[in-house]
Amino acid sequence: MRIALLGGTGDIGEGLALRWAYHTDHEVVIGSRDPEKARAKAEEYETELDSRGVEKKVTGFVNEMAADRADVVVLAVPPYHVADLTEEIADRLDEDSLLVSPAVGMQKGEGGFRYNPPSAGSVTQLVAEAAPEDVPVVGAFQNLAADRLANLDVELDLDTLVVGDDGDAKENVKDLAAGIEGLRALDAGPLANAAEVESLTPLLINLAIHNDGLHDVGVRFE
Amino acid sequence: MRIALLGGTGDIGEGLALRWAYHTDHEVVIGSRDPEKARAKAEEYETELDSRGVEKKVTGFVNEMAADRADVVVLAVPPYHVADLTEEIADRLDEDSLLVSPAVGMQKGEGGFRYNPPSAGSVTQLVAEAAPEDVPVVGAFQNLAADRLANLDVELDLDTLVVGDDGDAKENVKDLAAGIEGLRALDAGPLANAAEVESLTPLLINLAIHNDGLHDVGVRFE
Repeated sequence: MRIALLGGTGDIGEGLALRWAYHTDHEVVIGSRDPEKARAKAEEYETELDSRGVEKKVTGFVNEMAADRADVVVLAVPPYHVADLTEEIADRLDEDSLLVSPAVGMQKGEGGFRYNPPSAGSVTQLVAEAAPEDVPVVGAFQNLAADRLANLDVELDLDTLVVGDDGDAKENVKDLAAGIEGLRALDAGPLANAAEVESLTPLLINLAIHNDGLHDVGVRFE
Repeated sequence: MRIALLGGTGDIGEGLALRWAYHTDHEVVIGSRDPEKARAKAEEYETELDSRGVEKKVTGFVNEMAADRADVVVLAVPPYHVADLTEEIADRLDEDSLLVSPAVGMQKGEGGFRYNPPSAGSVTQLVAEAAPEDVPVVGAFQNLAADRLANLDVELDLDTLVVGDDGDAKENVKDLAAGIEGLRALDAGPLANAAEVESLTPLLINLAIHNDGLHDVGVRFE
C-alpha cells in the first residue's frame, strides 16, 4: 500500500512514517505545503532507518502531489487545518482513496487540557463533511503520543481506536495499524462515535501532567 | 473509614460495596430511598462475603441516614438524580465529609453511546454545584464496568481516574480506590477536567459493542 502522510514532517506524522517504513512493506510518502521540507524530512527518515539497518525509500512532495500518489492519505495536520487541506486535495482523491484523520481539537485550561470539538461534532466528522462524498473517511491514531511513536527504541504495546462508517475502509485502517509492531487496533464504531475517541487525547495529557512517572501516556483496553 | 454508598443497591454501588467490604477494613453502609431495600441488599452482600469466608457487617439505611453516618458518601445513582440527592443529604454533610461522584451522563445513538454532560460541564461539576460549599467533591470510579466490579472472582488489574479541586480529598479517594485489589488510582487533575474522564465511559461501552471478545471493558494507562 502507498501511504501519504500529509503534515508528515512533524508530530504524529513523523512517528507514523517511521513506524510504517520500519515495520511494514508499505511505501511511505511525506507531504507538506513546502515540497523542500517534505523532501528534507523524507531524507531524514531514510537516514534514521538506515542507521537501524533498514534500507527504505521515503519520498517527499507537496501535499497535493503526495495525495495524488497514494492509496491512503493521512491528514496529520493540526485540527484547524484539516478542512482546508481536505478541500485542497479533494480532486486528487477518488472512490479508491481512503482518508485517515488522526487530529484532535484541544484547548489548554487551568490544570489541564479540554476537548474542544468543531461544530461538526468531532475533527473526524469535519473531515468527512469536507471530503468528496465517495471517499471514505476513517478516524484513527488520535490517542498516540507523538514522541513515543517516533522513538523506534520504544516498544508500543498500546491500543489505537478506529471509527468510520465504511466497513471496508475501517478494516483497511485496522490492518495498517496492526502492521505497526505493538499496536492493536480496536473498532470504536461509526463516525458519530469519534468525539469520545478524540476526547481521550486531552485526558492522556492530563494524566501525564498530574502523575509522576507517566510520560507520553498511551492506553490499553482490557 | 465509614463509606456510605447511596444507590448502593445496584450497578456500580454493588461492586464498590462488595470490593471495599472484601478487600479493606472500611465500614460499608448501603443507602437507598427505600430503607427496606437497603437492608435487604446489605444482607445479600453479607451473605456473598460470608460464602467467601469473610465475616463483615454491612448495614442498610435510607439515604439521608446513611450519609449522616459516613465519612465518605458515594453518589452511586443515575446522573439525573445526583443533584436532587446531593440537596436531600446536604444538611447531613459537613466540612469533614467527602462526596464522591461516579456517575456519567450518556445517550444511546446509532452504533453506540455518546457522552451527554449536564450544562454544568460534567456530572462531577453538577454535584459540586449542588453540594454545600465547604464539602469537597471528588469524581472517581466513573469508568469501571459494574458487572466486572461486582464479581469478586474477577481480578481487576485496571485504572480508575480521580478528579477534584481539593488535594486532600483527592488523596483520600485515591487511597480508598487503591485499597481495592487490582485497582490503581490516577490523578486526572481538577474538577474542570471531569468531562474527559466521564466521556471515557461511553467509549468503553462502544468498544464492547464493536469488538468480539471485549466485555465489561476497562482501561490501563501506560
